[in-house]
Amino acid sequence: MKVSIVGTTGYGGVELLRILHQHPEFVIHSIHSTKEEVPIWNEYPHLFGLINKNIEEIDYDRIGEESELVFLATPSGVSSKIVGQLIDKNIKIIDLSGDLRLKNPNDYQLWYGKEPLNKHVTDEAVYGLSEWNSEEIKQAQWIANPGCYPTSTLLGLAPVVKNRLIDLKSIVVDGKSGTSGAGRGLNKGSLYAEVNENFKIYKVNEHQHTPEIEQQLQDWIGEAKPITFSTHLLPMTRGIMTTMYVQLLKEWETDRIIDLYKDIYDQQPFVRVRPRGNFPSVKEVCGSNFCDIGLDVDQRTGRLTIVSVIDNLMKGAAGQAVQNANIMMGLDQTSGLKFTPLYP
Amino acid sequence: MKVSIVGTTGYGGVELLRILHQHPEFVIHSIHSTKEEVPIWNEYPHLFGLINKNIEEIDYDRIGEESELVFLATPSGVSSKIVGQLIDKNIKIIDLSGDLRLKNPNDYQLWYGKEPLNKHVTDEAVYGLSEWNSEEIKQAQWIANPGCYPTSTLLGLAPVVKNRLIDLKSIVVDGKSGTSGAGRGLNKGSLYAEVNENFKIYKVNEHQHTPEIEQQLQDWIGEAKPITFSTHLLPMTRGIMTTMYVQLLKEWETDRIIDLYKDIYDQQPFVRVRPRGNFPSVKEVCGSNFCDIGLDVDQRTGRLTIVSVIDNLMKGAAGQAVQNANIMMGLDQTSGLKFTPLYP
Amino acid sequence: MKVSIVGTTGYGGVELLRILHQHPEFVIHSIHSTKEEVPIWNEYPHLFGLINKNIEEIDYDRIGEESELVFLATPSGVSSKIVGQLIDKNIKIIDLSGDLRLKNPNDYQLWYGKEPLNKHVTDEAVYGLSEWNSEEIKQAQWIANPGCYPTSTLLGLAPVVKNRLIDLKSIVVDGKSGTSGAGRGLNKGSLYAEVNENFKIYKVNEHQHTPEIEQQLQDWIGEAKPITFSTHLLPMTRGIMTTMYVQLLKEWETDRIIDLYKDIYDQQPFVRVRPRGNFPSVKEVCGSNFCDIGLDVDQRTGRLTIVSVIDNLMKGAAGQAVQNANIMMGLDQTSGLKFTPLYP
Amino acid sequence: MKVSIVGTTGYGGVELLRILHQHPEFVIHSIHSTKEEVPIWNEYPHLFGLINKNIEEIDYDRIGEESELVFLATPSGVSSKIVGQLIDKNIKIIDLSGDLRLKNPNDYQLWYGKEPLNKHVTDEAVYGLSEWNSEEIKQAQWIANPGCYPTSTLLGLAPVVKNRLIDLKSIVVDGKSGTSGAGRGLNKGSLYAEVNENFKIYKVNEHQHTPEIEQQLQDWIGEAKPITFSTHLLPMTRGIMTTMYVQLLKEWETDRIIDLYKDIYDQQPFVRVRPRGNFPSVKEVCGSNFCDIGLDVDQRTGRLTIVSVIDNLMKGAAGQAVQNANIMMGLDQTSGLKFTPLYP
Repeated sequence: MKVSIVGTTGYGGVELLRILHQHPEFVIHSIHSTKEEVPIWNEYPHLFGLINKNIEEIDYDRIGEESELVFLATPSGVSSKIVGQLIDKNIKIIDLSGDLRLKNPNDYQLWYGKEPLNKHVTDEAVYGLSEWNSEEIKQAQWIANPGCYPTSTLLGLAPVVKNRLIDLKSIVVDGKSGTSGAGRGLNKGSLYAEVNENFKIYKVNEHQHTPEIEQQLQDWIGEAKPITFSTHLLPMTRGIMTTMYVQLLKEWETDRIIDLYKDIYDQQPFVRVRPRGNFPSVKEVCGSNFCDIGLDVDQRTGRLTIVSVIDNLMKGAAGQAVQNANIMMGLDQTSGLKFTPLYP
Repeated sequence: MKVSIVGTTGYGGVELLRILHQHPEFVIHSIHSTKEEVPIWNEYPHLFGLINKNIEEIDYDRIGEESELVFLATPSGVSSKIVGQLIDKNIKIIDLSGDLRLKNPNDYQLWYGKEPLNKHVTDEAVYGLSEWNSEEIKQAQWIANPGCYPTSTLLGLAPVVKNRLIDLKSIVVDGKSGTSGAGRGLNKGSLYAEVNENFKIYKVNEHQHTPEIEQQLQDWIGEAKPITFSTHLLPMTRGIMTTMYVQLLKEWETDRIIDLYKDIYDQQPFVRVRPRGNFPSVKEVCGSNFCDIGLDVDQRTGRLTIVSVIDNLMKGAAGQAVQNANIMMGLDQTSGLKFTPLYP
Repeated sequence: MKVSIVGTTGYGGVELLRILHQHPEFVIHSIHSTKEEVPIWNEYPHLFGLINKNIEEIDYDRIGEESELVFLATPSGVSSKIVGQLIDKNIKIIDLSGDLRLKNPNDYQLWYGKEPLNKHVTDEAVYGLSEWNSEEIKQAQWIANPGCYPTSTLLGLAPVVKNRLIDLKSIVVDGKSGTSGAGRGLNKGSLYAEVNENFKIYKVNEHQHTPEIEQQLQDWIGEAKPITFSTHLLPMTRGIMTTMYVQLLKEWETDRIIDLYKDIYDQQPFVRVRPRGNFPSVKEVCGSNFCDIGLDVDQRTGRLTIVSVIDNLMKGAAGQAVQNANIMMGLDQTSGLKFTPLYP
Repeated sequence: MKVSIVGTTGYGGVELLRILHQHPEFVIHSIHSTKEEVPIWNEYPHLFGLINKNIEEIDYDRIGEESELVFLATPSGVSSKIVGQLIDKNIKIIDLSGDLRLKNPNDYQLWYGKEPLNKHVTDEAVYGLSEWNSEEIKQAQWIANPGCYPTSTLLGLAPVVKNRLIDLKSIVVDGKSGTSGAGRGLNKGSLYAEVNENFKIYKVNEHQHTPEIEQQLQDWIGEAKPITFSTHLLPMTRGIMTTMYVQLLKEWETDRIIDLYKDIYDQQPFVRVRPRGNFPSVKEVCGSNFCDIGLDVDQRTGRLTIVSVIDNLMKGAAGQAVQNANIMMGLDQTSGLKFTPLYP
């Protein structure tokens, strides 16, 4: 099955290349970017001798005719324009940006500060949280691939939210991400000397992933309260941890909560619920598509601490995108994604 | 004024050396450790040619006779034994471990898992949170130097707690620390290859700094609820950020909260309250004794986010210890502590 | 084909697990260590749910009977003892330590400071530099898997040495390695706070890889001079760069030298010779079995600079070990080793 | 004494601020940049509350009239233009760029690829290698502050070169630098995700510090051969190590070489010659003005290995600039520079 990638020169795009290059079913047919037409290894020398394709100009007709599926690894605000051009081609789209995610255009405008897509487009897009929406994903033509933070947050919250075990007003999500999440764009805050031996909080109470999380919570149980969602920049390249604090509505033992999570994620190959007392660290999923979850109830406060980790470029972006592509195309969802974490 | 240091070979001890070596009033009279008697630069070659002292065996009599003040940069469980030997000497003691901090011996036993000191000893020790307890510190013979996390947490919480602006049950403290906080001891979790490109949560709902924070909150307002306090290990050497989430009892504008903090810390040379929209990052206090604080109220949730950062070896340990020594000895509290942060 | 691993808890051992777990032909039959018998994920939680084997005691008879090949990922000085026990079993051995490498027992004694194996054992062992010794490897019963530095050094030097283009007395090798090369053992020099934001030279003119390199040079051309070989510790986990300086015997253009290297390594899937002006960086081979080489002649000095990079745990240890196992077992040498570098 | 800084927003400039802010004799009178006129803490929040100056437009007349000395922490190619404007003012100039360093305009043109200053200007500038040129520095009006690599290289080579102990054709300098040396400019190669867990060689045989080193060697002994000089980028912020390899003309014991270095640098407060077997690491000079040197002769090859480390922003830039300012103004050369290295 031929696939194309638009936005190959960013970190999400190059991670798609790493996965798809050895995928047993998908073939990388063409790669595109607004940059100059050079061999991809000019941009990414680690691909020298491995992937000999040139980066090409974006030709919507050709992409639509020659590929069955296109991944958009383009920034928010750019994807929306590309989607507009591809929408009437007979091609499946998986968009890694935020442009297709929010159903309410006002939310998009408010949190992204950009012009939203037409509501009828976003309405038809399926939110690609693979573990929870696989039935819709199978039928979808367009996938809004989830954000990195929302993926780890929602996989962590789903069991207690859907089972209505917690006070919805109590949700506090403290997220920490490696810098690859900020992309390859040039800005002072991404310079090595500014990030190294440093740790920063950013977009306090303003992060655009907030409404994405709230929208999914609302979808799940028909009501949602505003959550507190904070994001920090880690002095490392790959990985996200979200530490979540929620007030349980009644007393629960840690063991029972863990059993609940284990039951719910039992059939999910990419979610690993850790045993009691064992909490995942970020490196333990590096380069893989896993989301690992650890849990503990503090009997003193009645609060549950949920810790979830992902590789932001994998389960938080390219990995989940390929997982969704697998599901859309009727393949096993793990196809081409059986990476063992790289440790150390 | 002659001072001694016991426990010179740990990171807290060597940071005391850095400060005291150029302190205008204190003179390092002797340095002690249980390690072999070698020149200090054998352990720390960066001191070659700067500090030519030998590490000496611990001789309580000599220390008591020859020095006016002794810093104990020894681990919890060790300090208590040393304090026992020094208690009847005529010498002021500043203990950087947790052994003198908790007034309730049961708390110590429960959270530290070690034998507590006699209650009459801990009762006489003054908790050395310099900005808030300077009057008691002036009179003190023995100082329990605060823990690193409690310092950044309590300086961040004090204004809203003391002014009773928040729901005490709502306090969630999400702490992140560099690895120097774990000391120079050999354990697998402190190896470079385990910490680098990694981020871990540890001691979930079990960290021994929890009762220390709660005790101070209780002291301030006569009541306290159990707090949620989490700690994470950052892939960096120096620095702590505590991100704190508290529910305000009524509506507050961010600006007014910031003004409140500015007023309260106005006369405190080491606390810098940042303007609205400006949040401190950890590197911005590196090598200095500052505690920087940023604030934001989320009107959607009524929750206040408080961000405080310190250098864990400075304001979180050796820096505050010297600040307390200054106060005890009637010096200006900034004496020998006017370090500009090292950036980048 | 069943294989066993002895020394599974070190970084070389766990990298073998990562490779062999998905190898199309080899099956991990048993894993052994002197540590307690626990599930491997207790030691390495990133393997939770992936590899459910227990670490077992070392039982030489069982290993010899049940497996066709055993990897020894044990330290120098330990491997020699294990080899002694396995030598008369009908099992192929690939030893990742230095114990089988040096043919001259005096050299081993001098540079390792340990008791050498019997000369008849080391004489029968084949030095597993896959690209150059594949014929002998095919026939070998015991493989001395090359050291990390020697692998990158020898692949870089081979073309100019074997073609006698350089003054043998002029060879200066300046090596830099990530800390995973120092293993998972506990020592102060491997602590995060000592390695991070630091760069050290170590074992100056005393590194045990020196005679290993010289022995191979001698083998290649029947003469060798002592080389200068320096090693430094990088503040990173994975990867080695060796920068090599050699005096050319006559004038050469950079282009011609590059052509020579390209010709020689043309059929070698894991050696990538870079085009002029393009030098490999260490991250560009991370997690892969590649050795990338860059070259430049300085016409001012007549000196050639050779830059080679490898992932020390892959081509420098476990990767080359599996490459050798492939060759020994008549498989394609790339079998199970087609990892795209993880970037960024 | 009033001083001005032009180019305050780069890393060299902000390091000058850190030093001068607490210098006992110099007063920061004005700070300048081509950036917008904002408080300096807008650019560098770690200075919040410490330095309340605004960045100002560059006004040559005012600088010349009001300050006694100006530091140019501007890039090569920019400094030359500023020097042109200040040359006829009655003000001492210390230029941290490369623009005043090379006496031969052709060298500048060749290695920098920019338009050189008038030869009469560069001829009058004194090369500010403080330890070796203090007499000329005392008399100088304009100082060409040495490059970072040349400082560590020349301090390491001086004793054996000036005493003619080595074969001049044999000099190989393998340099490694932290990323702060690349400045705060935006380019892909300085992004965190590109530098972290990476190690790169750059400007192979093309680095502009090569002729600077060769010019000084020539000055010292009236002859010089082209040297081999390589530079690598370390995944860390501060610090340089140069590992130097030179062929001794006759046999020397390591001890005698060390004694020679100790004698030569005996009166130099910022050069620390380490004892035999002890080699400096980069972190051991972090934040200080030290240059530490370690030495070892390999009897097998007759080659001497010289290891020198500096903090590239201190002894390699701002620290040496202030040291030169001290010397020019008749102060003790250590004035305001007695920083103990920050460790860990």
